[in-house]
Amino acid sequence: MVMNSHVVDTSRSPCALLRPVAVNDVKLEDRFWAPRIEKLVANTLPTQYKLLEETDRINRFRWASGKLSSKPEKSIYIFDDTDAYKWVEACAFALAQAPNPEIEKLVDQVVAEIIAAQEEDGYLFTEYHGQKSRRWRNLTLDHELYSAGHLIQAAIALHRTTGKRALLDAAIKFANLISAVFGPDRLRGVPGHPEVEMALVELYRETGDIRYLETASFFLEERGKGLLKPIDQEVLRLYNFLGGAEYLIDSKPFRELDEIVGHAVRSLYLNCGATDIFIETGDKTIFEALMRLWNNFVNCKMYVTGAAGSRYISESFGENYELPNTKAYAETCAAIANVMWNWRMLLATGDAKFADIMELALYNAVLSGISLDGTRYFYVNPLADRGKTRRQPWFPCACCPPNIARLLASLPGYFYSVSEEGVWIHLYASSSQKISYEGKAVEIVQKTNYPWDGTVDVTLSMVEGIEFSLFLRIPGWCSRALAKFEDKEVNLKPGTYAEFRKKWGPGEKITLSFEMPVKLLVAHPHVTNDFHRVTIKRGPLVYCLEREDCPDADVWNLILRDENEFTTEYRKDLLGGVVVLKNKALVVDENAWKERLYQESEETVLKEKKVEATGIPYYVWANRTPGSMIVWIPYIKNRPKL
Amino acid sequence: MVMNSHVVDTSRSPCALLRPVAVNDVKLEDRFWAPRIEKLVANTLPTQYKLLEETDRINRFRWASGKLSSKPEKSIYIFDDTDAYKWVEACAFALAQAPNPEIEKLVDQVVAEIIAAQEEDGYLFTEYHGQKSRRWRNLTLDHELYSAGHLIQAAIALHRTTGKRALLDAAIKFANLISAVFGPDRLRGVPGHPEVEMALVELYRETGDIRYLETASFFLEERGKGLLKPIDQEVLRLYNFLGGAEYLIDSKPFRELDEIVGHAVRSLYLNCGATDIFIETGDKTIFEALMRLWNNFVNCKMYVTGAAGSRYISESFGENYELPNTKAYAETCAAIANVMWNWRMLLATGDAKFADIMELALYNAVLSGISLDGTRYFYVNPLADRGKTRRQPWFPCACCPPNIARLLASLPGYFYSVSEEGVWIHLYASSSQKISYEGKAVEIVQKTNYPWDGTVDVTLSMVEGIEFSLFLRIPGWCSRALAKFEDKEVNLKPGTYAEFRKKWGPGEKITLSFEMPVKLLVAHPHVTNDFHRVTIKRGPLVYCLEREDCPDADVWNLILRDENEFTTEYRKDLLGGVVVLKNKALVVDENAWKERLYQESEETVLKEKKVEATGIPYYVWANRTPGSMIVWIPYIKNRPKL
Repeated sequence: MVMNSHVVDTSRSPCALLRPVAVNDVKLEDRFWAPRIEKLVANTLPTQYKLLEETDRINRFRWASGKLSSKPEKSIYIFDDTDAYKWVEACAFALAQAPNPEIEKLVDQVVAEIIAAQEEDGYLFTEYHGQKSRRWRNLTLDHELYSAGHLIQAAIALHRTTGKRALLDAAIKFANLISAVFGPDRLRGVPGHPEVEMALVELYRETGDIRYLETASFFLEERGKGLLKPIDQEVLRLYNFLGGAEYLIDSKPFRELDEIVGHAVRSLYLNCGATDIFIETGDKTIFEALMRLWNNFVNCKMYVTGAAGSRYISESFGENYELPNTKAYAETCAAIANVMWNWRMLLATGDAKFADIMELALYNAVLSGISLDGTRYFYVNPLADRGKTRRQPWFPCACCPPNIARLLASLPGYFYSVSEEGVWIHLYASSSQKISYEGKAVEIVQKTNYPWDGTVDVTLSMVEGIEFSLFLRIPGWCSRALAKFEDKEVNLKPGTYAEFRKKWGPGEKITLSFEMPVKLLVAHPHVTNDFHRVTIKRGPLVYCLEREDCPDADVWNLILRDENEFTTEYRKDLLGGVVVLKNKALVVDENAWKERLYQESEETVLKEKKVEATGIPYYVWANRTPGSMIVWIPYIKNRPKL
Repeated sequence: MVMNSHVVDTSRSPCALLRPVAVNDVKLEDRFWAPRIEKLVANTLPTQYKLLEETDRINRFRWASGKLSSKPEKSIYIFDDTDAYKWVEACAFALAQAPNPEIEKLVDQVVAEIIAAQEEDGYLFTEYHGQKSRRWRNLTLDHELYSAGHLIQAAIALHRTTGKRALLDAAIKFANLISAVFGPDRLRGVPGHPEVEMALVELYRETGDIRYLETASFFLEERGKGLLKPIDQEVLRLYNFLGGAEYLIDSKPFRELDEIVGHAVRSLYLNCGATDIFIETGDKTIFEALMRLWNNFVNCKMYVTGAAGSRYISESFGENYELPNTKAYAETCAAIANVMWNWRMLLATGDAKFADIMELALYNAVLSGISLDGTRYFYVNPLADRGKTRRQPWFPCACCPPNIARLLASLPGYFYSVSEEGVWIHLYASSSQKISYEGKAVEIVQKTNYPWDGTVDVTLSMVEGIEFSLFLRIPGWCSRALAKFEDKEVNLKPGTYAEFRKKWGPGEKITLSFEMPVKLLVAHPHVTNDFHRVTIKRGPLVYCLEREDCPDADVWNLILRDENEFTTEYRKDLLGGVVVLKNKALVVDENAWKERLYQESEETVLKEKKVEATGIPYYVWANRTPGSMIVWIPYIKNRPKL
């Protein structure tokens, strides 16, 4: 029984402009997303379950509940419980899309193991099972609250999508304990890894119990007071090594932050929680801080793919414009967090700029994180590689695989919203849905070949005519957008929502045309790695060059020139069906560089022979024979003399 | 009483082509190095002594010898003894250059504290003083052998330069203990941080005791067998985090290494030790491995400044061509290690390519590590900066300051060598020296304004005529080299030693002219950060642009064009006297980038106004008001169309 499979339920939130449309109300029928979700159900969720078992993630719960006598050895991180939680959440949203008895049975089994591991007072964190004295002692590194957050999110998703509430009851019990332990007159502390904040707000939305919102707000308010500075000398050393208070976003109060810093996932999850708190409380000083962080992120620290995090060892943001390509961090989880944050900012405001970033991260930085067959994953997503970085079936720290699973499973929930004024379309894909607006059913059908083509037919049908606005997102990436509607052509402004208001009847159609030329993007000159390089982009997709498409040269040796146009070609048999982009390229003569690292500038030589440079979407790289890959491609543009 | 102040005493080494000329035999009288060594004695050594006291480095010894009852708290690293050892070594070489009663008195005091801390059986490592059970237990991280290496080097230097042997006796006692503990039929282990290998070989040279050479060889042979993999789980986690066996250069036997990997200082110190072992044993398989490592380093992993180490957190080498500029590691100690290694390779072979790299690292990567007044230091040496990286008076991990002190103090010892065939000049600076060749005195006087000017007058005088070859290094960086000798002009080949053989009498003069045009270097195209950028170089000096010389624009916004020539100007009042290089530059219009990180390539705008770009030598950057600095400068070169 599907009840309400909202991802973020702003149905009753006082400061959200947009109300959710449930995952189960949207039916993707396109050639881009629908096959991915099929693979998610057929391959990703079953293989992840197997890996959760093989790597002792489920056994941790069995051990805690006494079914196993010794602590399982293959799971080594204290936050490993969360892999199971995220997998349950992914299954829940998958079940919202379509019934699946096998998956449902697996979920029931795993949920039973989780619940059995809960302690009497509600505590549920297998690492410290039965060791009350260790609880809440090392919030800097211990991830108890982080784990609670994922438990709560999984429980809410399962309840919303299946109506089953055993896990929700367990989550509530744990949340009650947390709310009882932490507070202004109780234990003062903040989670070393944010996550529980957004989960607690969602639990407040689910249950109406204001304590969870208060606890989430408490964690936000206490942050930045240095509470995370460890006393233990060994932990302190690690804390300092990673970047201290700034790494944990604890160097100043949230409202005073003006630069996005620290561990990228921590930072973006914290922003998700803060946005959720704003949505429920309307505290504008929180929103102002969020906007400063968003501007700094988007204008100074975000990869062109929407990825986040520049420092591969500390997994953190770097300085402004510090965006290395080969040694990018760009963790899949951070890209997912970027989608989650921008989704919340969009719900709060209805501002298209948030939808633009959400779409960018989704199609590029997130999607690169999973293989075409749905069984291998990237943890880091470099933007240039020599063919060494390959997707793996699992990781010792396996946060990314189930995280991308839960995002993809819930994806239909990101396509539409409703507001007082009407219905909003954020993302484009062939799909059909029945959306409830003011209690009345609005049927919407999209027909499109997006993202390969910028034409979208949107058809609305309803039994009785109702007046409302249809808000259509005009992507910020498009050069020119047109709508054909009631025999008129209207020019639309990219980077906005176009509003069509009327009393809609049955069978109304709007045809959108987003011009989708190949664009060459350049980066701010202080992104020193990208100087005199371009990224090829078409529509929402960032392209790259990969060795396999270029038999004549290592793609790191190619140079694009400014005078040539790209040609586009849809190749349905290639990499699940992609539009490739082709151009001629110059080639650096590597022989001129044999056993040389530096030489005088006159000695650089280009080969006489030109080759074809074939761009493929970045998200499909590393699905074939390993070879060099590059997003920022050397580019020569003739310039006036001095 | 100065006895023989050799840095590396190859006087009796069977497989060294070159024999040393002692530090005290060379008198630098130039405007480049001599003032630096004056400041070393006047500022660096006394301030370092104060800091050694203030930061409890000396107190560690006092505590170990029972003079202090509790362990000093301000010194936190277990290898902190070595800061005192390196300072003693620096003082010893300074005393070889000129007597200095104050420094000598300080050294005597510090040496007394060190010796008093030695345990009865010779063990000397304050961290484990009196805790026999902790000795040699965690070679991976514990630095006992590293510390022994620096003790031995300091002791040898002090003995060679002052004749005082108390510290040498202490070092011998410790070396005897090490040789008794480690061996094929005894404890099998290798130092986590190489250093003791070259020290033991030098002790063998100093004492003739073959055991030390055997122990050094044993350490080299045992390396690469995985002995450094820790058993303790916590240590294992750190080991894996840093890069495991490869980080410690323990992933394969030394003779099988074909790529320079791991922690840069560890790696280069190991190569120093291996070269020393080759010099004493003639084992060609070691030399072959060294050449593979050298070629890989110089052709794929060395910064244009001669700096080493690409990864700022693990302090290690990266992949081939991985050479980030802002987040470079490029530790001062690694550059010093580069000088030390190439010096040994040069002693072994007499091949000028090693002298070229030694000179490059010395003038650029090493010298950047110390401020003009000799009291502040860089640990990392970035090649591009926003003005945030500043030299510091000291560091919690203070390896670099006394390391650069000992190198500068011993610098005269790197200028000349002697071989069976004659006398070698490696470095150029106004100086006068009396060198012993086959028991006869050869007086050499250099007059030059090197490195600002490529003219060098070399005058030889000796009482009785003797026949030998004079080998003059023709730097690899020069475009054209001439010698005027006996009224003839001879063309010389850059990157070689030019040999002049005759029976030399009194007052013979050779005038060398090294053409020293401004050169623009480009980097291998796979150094992605440096694409379409140039480094300005003149003679041995790498140049940079710094904000203070460019009032009209942030130097990160400048772009050089290919059509303009640089002008040179010697400015004696600037930064201790430097030649500046000037050119016109285009300027990126930052307004076109306001609140933008990426935009379409057509939208990049250059300001109409051109500005003057003034290059200063890289080694003097960050000696004025903090501001942006850049070595690899954007460069536009028009190219033929496709």
